[in-house]
Amino acid sequence: MATVKLIGDGEATAEVRAVYEDIRATRKTDYVNNFWRALANHLPTLRRTWESVKEVTAPGALDALTKEMIYLAVSATNGCNYCIASHTAAARKAGMTDAMLGELMAVVGMANETNSLANGYQVEVDERFRTTS
Amino acid sequence: MATVKLIGDGEATAEVRAVYEDIRATRKTDYVNNFWRALANHLPTLRRTWESVKEVTAPGALDALTKEMIYLAVSATNGCNYCIASHTAAARKAGMTDAMLGELMAVVGMANETNSLANGYQVEVDERFRTTS
Amino acid sequence: MATVKLIGDGEATAEVRAVYEDIRATRKTDYVNNFWRALANHLPTLRRTWESVKEVTAPGALDALTKEMIYLAVSATNGCNYCIASHTAAARKAGMTDAMLGELMAVVGMANETNSLANGYQVEVDERFRTTS
Amino acid sequence: MATVKLIGDGEATAEVRAVYEDIRATRKTDYVNNFWRALANHLPTLRRTWESVKEVTAPGALDALTKEMIYLAVSATNGCNYCIASHTAAARKAGMTDAMLGELMAVVGMANETNSLANGYQVEVDERFRTTS
Amino acid sequence: MATVKLIGDGEATAEVRAVYEDIRATRKTDYVNNFWRALANHLPTLRRTWESVKEVTAPGALDALTKEMIYLAVSATNGCNYCIASHTAAARKAGMTDAMLGELMAVVGMANETNSLANGYQVEVDERFRTTS
Amino acid sequence: MATVKLIGDGEATAEVRAVYEDIRATRKTDYVNNFWRALANHLPTLRRTWESVKEVTAPGALDALTKEMIYLAVSATNGCNYCIASHTAAARKAGMTDAMLGELMAVVGMANETNSLANGYQVEVDERFRTTS
Repeated sequence: MATVKLIGDGEATAEVRAVYEDIRATRKTDYVNNFWRALANHLPTLRRTWESVKEVTAPGALDALTKEMIYLAVSATNGCNYCIASHTAAARKAGMTDAMLGELMAVVGMANETNSLANGYQVEVDERFRTTS
Repeated sequence: MATVKLIGDGEATAEVRAVYEDIRATRKTDYVNNFWRALANHLPTLRRTWESVKEVTAPGALDALTKEMIYLAVSATNGCNYCIASHTAAARKAGMTDAMLGELMAVVGMANETNSLANGYQVEVDERFRTTS
Repeated sequence: MATVKLIGDGEATAEVRAVYEDIRATRKTDYVNNFWRALANHLPTLRRTWESVKEVTAPGALDALTKEMIYLAVSATNGCNYCIASHTAAARKAGMTDAMLGELMAVVGMANETNSLANGYQVEVDERFRTTS
Repeated sequence: MATVKLIGDGEATAEVRAVYEDIRATRKTDYVNNFWRALANHLPTLRRTWESVKEVTAPGALDALTKEMIYLAVSATNGCNYCIASHTAAARKAGMTDAMLGELMAVVGMANETNSLANGYQVEVDERFRTTS
Repeated sequence: MATVKLIGDGEATAEVRAVYEDIRATRKTDYVNNFWRALANHLPTLRRTWESVKEVTAPGALDALTKEMIYLAVSATNGCNYCIASHTAAARKAGMTDAMLGELMAVVGMANETNSLANGYQVEVDERFRTTS
Repeated sequence: MATVKLIGDGEATAEVRAVYEDIRATRKTDYVNNFWRALANHLPTLRRTWESVKEVTAPGALDALTKEMIYLAVSATNGCNYCIASHTAAARKAGMTDAMLGELMAVVGMANETNSLANGYQVEVDERFRTTS
């Protein structure tokens, strides 16, 4: 159970409703998920977070599917249950197949393994990896 | 400074040399980076980790560039300096542009923000996100 | 379900009971929460942890509310469900309003975002931030 | 060494310069630290992150010092070197004394200890901690 | 609920069945736990992960019990519920007593506390700790 | 460079000196490492942390070497450079051989991999793992 109330449409202020409507319009769905209904307890955080998520997940140099898979990779690494569930759903909706999910998780798993090995042995960065772009 | 010796080619056993040669052949480079030279202190870990990394980063349902970007996303989230440096280099080599890196980090940053918000409010997973494939 | 038994008052040893009583007296409540009942399986850990928590959460240069909010910030970052739930309750009891929780989480979220960006780009520490007090 | 170039004032575009000027004006200092100069490689991330940081660290229901201490608590937990250095400096500038830093770190340390204990024993959340506001 | 289907024996392919049988033979049990049934959605990950886990948890320079306790220490630190539950069970089966679990968690807790303190104060590594073996 | 001063013997108060002497006596060495000299800026944290570390690392149901390896496993997982360096040194002093370090890191690496896989697929805990001792 969330530590704050999930704000339903009926009890939302006009400002909160406006964000909900933008979520619905942008995502072409009637459904506003619990994350936003929890954030709605603090209007500035709801607004700022939605504007930011909308901006960073829009297609650009990376397509929407790649972005959702990166989001899922971070969420699996952090062990955030809510985020894993919602971004697995979003990635599937954006076209992620079972084979793609399988390979995504394989990379996530190996990255977490080799991260702990590189840290655990305190391996110094190779000179050739130090050059900036 | 690493907590173990970095094993040079000259002091490597035949088994370690064989892994180094496979790294060189697979990556089409003469350079074996420090991470493998640290792992070489424990042959089973060197072998197993290299075989696994080779397998999971090979192109499949996901291309090599997407896989390197996922690797980098995990490494940035974990704050593993060595891994960030080496996989930024690998992703650039695989074709990542400055614009793609910018968008990748933007997603990574927002994912870490919303992960802590979803956790911090203990948001319960929506019914519709619970359905398996 | 916990991986160890939660020790009820009836089955507690005299030493465990003494810690429970100190928890009750210090917190002016009859309720001993599950965390302590789990730790009670290992008396030295129960004692040491309670003494430490009592010491660090007592008002000093920082007031009790600020300390509980810091505790909550760490717990949200780690994604520790139990700790988030119990320290949100404790912070509210110490006077945290909904507005304060909203701003607290906003800072926690941004801190996690910028942490991953600073790590992800391997930004070098500015000379002026290196000076000790 | 950062994985991207740190953008100096001389090579910055007009848009980047505008953000740098707002940082200078808001913080009443001539100094723009490396973090922003790294983000400047991706204008949307520079803009969005600065606007967000400016908003969440401004005094509100919580004062600026409390917010900087929360920022530092998260950074110490994540082990983000850059963030620890810069937010320790910012918190000191906002009035954090040595005694306050000592107590802050004491809470951060205990929170990380008890987080791992609560997780490690998989303690179930007490009924009374489940009630929303 | 898992984000992928748990593959039962009846619906498993011959290749998946072969891994299940090796798990049963190696562990001298009929029971194949959910983790493997989830991984079975991606055969290469199932195979590679099982081969690796079998290799690293086999007795060698460290006995099986020590290895399970190390596994549990990492899982408690990461807050991975599934892993904590399964490796607590495995460690108990390998001979971990209540007293040993108590001491294990006490070390895990203190390690997480001192890790955040060493990070939080950015303590520089002592010269004498920099020497490799 | 640490964010606080490292307190030398000459500038330490009598209370800090007493802790330094206990560290020297307990560890049978003249050397007091930087971690304690940083903590010495806040006497209650220095005292409490030293007493706790002394207690949890003393041999009991688990021997000193096993405890140092668990400490190292947690530190590698958290990526705490200082802690990895100091506890690798401590574990070696307690008898850890190169082969043992190799197997320890192999377990740590696999644990971090499978932790992220179990989280990433949101695998539900098996009924048989839910039973407390």
